[in-house]
Amino acid sequence: MAMETIDRPPERTTLAVVAAEAAVSMSTVSKVLNARPGVSEVTRARVESLLHAHGYSRRGGAETAPLIELVFSQLDEAWSIELIRGVERVARENHMSVVLTQSGDRHSPGTEWVDGVTQRRPAGVILVFSDLSPEQKRQLRTRGIPFVVVDPAGDPAPDVPSVGSANWSGGVLAARHLIDLGHRDIAMITGPDDMMCSRARVSGFRSAMDAAGIPVREELIVVGRFLREDGIIRGKELLSLQRPPTGVFAGSDLQALGVYEAARELGVAIPDDLSVVGYDDLQIAKWVGPPLTTVRQPLTEMAEQATRLVLGLRNADQSGTLRLDLATSLVVRQSSRPPS
Amino acid sequence: MAMETIDRPPERTTLAVVAAEAAVSMSTVSKVLNARPGVSEVTRARVESLLHAHGYSRRGGAETAPLIELVFSQLDEAWSIELIRGVERVARENHMSVVLTQSGDRHSPGTEWVDGVTQRRPAGVILVFSDLSPEQKRQLRTRGIPFVVVDPAGDPAPDVPSVGSANWSGGVLAARHLIDLGHRDIAMITGPDDMMCSRARVSGFRSAMDAAGIPVREELIVVGRFLREDGIIRGKELLSLQRPPTGVFAGSDLQALGVYEAARELGVAIPDDLSVVGYDDLQIAKWVGPPLTTVRQPLTEMAEQATRLVLGLRNADQSGTLRLDLATSLVVRQSSRPPS
Repeated sequence: MAMETIDRPPERTTLAVVAAEAAVSMSTVSKVLNARPGVSEVTRARVESLLHAHGYSRRGGAETAPLIELVFSQLDEAWSIELIRGVERVARENHMSVVLTQSGDRHSPGTEWVDGVTQRRPAGVILVFSDLSPEQKRQLRTRGIPFVVVDPAGDPAPDVPSVGSANWSGGVLAARHLIDLGHRDIAMITGPDDMMCSRARVSGFRSAMDAAGIPVREELIVVGRFLREDGIIRGKELLSLQRPPTGVFAGSDLQALGVYEAARELGVAIPDDLSVVGYDDLQIAKWVGPPLTTVRQPLTEMAEQATRLVLGLRNADQSGTLRLDLATSLVVRQSSRPPS
Repeated sequence: MAMETIDRPPERTTLAVVAAEAAVSMSTVSKVLNARPGVSEVTRARVESLLHAHGYSRRGGAETAPLIELVFSQLDEAWSIELIRGVERVARENHMSVVLTQSGDRHSPGTEWVDGVTQRRPAGVILVFSDLSPEQKRQLRTRGIPFVVVDPAGDPAPDVPSVGSANWSGGVLAARHLIDLGHRDIAMITGPDDMMCSRARVSGFRSAMDAAGIPVREELIVVGRFLREDGIIRGKELLSLQRPPTGVFAGSDLQALGVYEAARELGVAIPDDLSVVGYDDLQIAKWVGPPLTTVRQPLTEMAEQATRLVLGLRNADQSGTLRLDLATSLVVRQSSRPPS
C-alpha cells in the first residue's frame, strides 16, 4: 500500500498533463493506452507521441495477464519447434500461456498485433527473426511491456535485449574436431555472407585452421544459404574436385543432410570416405544414417533464457542493452572419423 | 440492434434465476462467468452447476477476443510444428493470434487453464492429443466457447467435434504400392495395439494383401510404438529372418528411419535390397537418403480444417457430434522399387 501511495500521483499527473496538452479527456488517454475503440487515428497518434515525449511508462507487474507473446517471422524452419518448446516450458513454470504470432515476410508484425498486445497486456514479448518498428517499440515501452529478441542470426538490434549463441566458438569446435581426427583437406559450406552468424562460424573455422598451422584451400570454402539444396549442389561440386576434401563442415544440419545426399548419389561413403560435421543439432541430426556429428546450438535453452529474461525485465529499467550468448558444444556421432 | 433487443432478455433472465437460486448477487454470477476473483470455491461450484442445470450458454461472436487456444499434450513430437502451422495459418487469415498451452502428461490442461480461457474469451479451442475433463467441457459450453479435437490417433471422444484422417485407406495405399511393385514378402511394423489409428492402418494393410490374394506371413507383422528405436530393433529382427521381407511398411516415418538405420548397420541397401514405405510424410521424409516413400497424413490441413470448424461453430449449436476425416495419399520417392 505504501508503495502504491507513493507511485500513483506522478503517473496520474503525467496522464493529466498529456490529456491537457492533447486537449482530450483522461478517458480518451486511457482508451489509447488500452487500445480501446472510439478514438480517431489523429487523436490516437497525438496522444501516443505526447506519452512518449513525457517519458510515460506504465508500471508492469500485477496488472499483466499470464501470457507471453512469441512472434516468429516464419514457422517453416526446422528449428521453430525447438524455440517454441523453450518459451512454452518457462511460461508453464510461471503458470503462463504462450500467444504465438507469425509476422510473415515483412519481418515485423502488423499494427493489429500491437493493438492485440495492448489489450492482452502480456508479461512480455519474445521475438524470433522478427523485428519491431520504432513506433511499435515505443508503444510497448509506453505500456511497460518488455521485449527480448532470440537471435540465432547473431546480429542483435542495438536497443533491444537479446539472446544468441557463440557462433565463432562453434566454428572453432567443428574445425578442431576434424583437424584432431587427422583431416587436412577440410571444406566448409558456409551460410549467406550477409548473416553475422554465418560470418562468425567461418571466422572461427579459419582461426582453428590457422592455429593448427593448416593452410585453408580457398576452393574448398563455398557459400550456401543454410538449405539442404545447397548441401547437395555444393557437396557434388566439392566431391568432384581433382583433390576432393576428406572432411566437410556444413554451416547447418540441413546443408549437412544435402552433403549426405550428394555423397549417396556419387557413391561416396560417410564416414569412410568423407567426414561430415553439421551445425545446429536439430532433432533429425540423430535420426539420419549415419547419425550426424554436429555443433549444438542450444535453441531450446536460448528460448528459455530469453523468456526468463523478459519476465525479469517486467519491473526493471529496460534502457541498457543486454546481450547473452549461450555456449555451443560439439556432439560427436558417427559421421566423422579419421581419414582413410 | 433488433437482434440484441430480442436476445438479451432471456439471457439476463437465466442469470437472474441462477443468482436467485444460488442466493448470490448478479455481480457474483458475472464474476464466476468471467473467472474474476472474489468468489469462494463453494459459491463458484454452486453457480457453475446451476448455470449448467439451466442450460445457460453465453452467446459468442462479437464479444470474443481474436484468439484461438491450441492445447497440446506434448510438444516433443516431430509433427507438432506441422499442426501449429495449420492453426496459425487460419488464425492469421482471420486476424487472430494463437495461444499455445501444453497440458503435459495428465493429458488434460489444469484448472488454471480454464480460468485463463474464461478471462481471455477466445473464439475457440483446438485440442491435440489432449482432452478436457467433463467439468472443463461444461465450463467452456456455459461460456459459449466452442472446441474441436485434432485427432491423428483416430479415436475421437463421442461428444466433441473432431478432425482426423483416413488411416485405413492409408494402410491400403502403402500395401498396394508394394504389391504393385511386385513384392510378396511384405512386413509391417505397426503402432501400439491400443491406438485406433494403428489398428486401422494394419487393417487396411491386411485388406489390400487379401484383395490381391497374397497371404500375410504372420511373423512379418510386428508391433512398435511409432518410435525410431522400434524401427531399429524390429527392422534388425525382420532382416535377420531366414527369409527376410523385400518390403517393409512402417507405421510411422520415425519407425521407417529406424529401419533405415537397421539396414545400414546390416549392410542392406535401400531400395535395392529392401523397399521401405513410411507413414506421416513429416518434413524429414524428403530429407533422408534415400528420400522416403510414405503415406501422407495431411497434418497441416487437419489443423487448418479444425480451426475453420471451430470458428464456424462460434454461433452454432454444438450438440451434434461432428467427425471429419481428411484423405491420405501416397507420396512415392526413392525408397521403394521392384524387388531384385
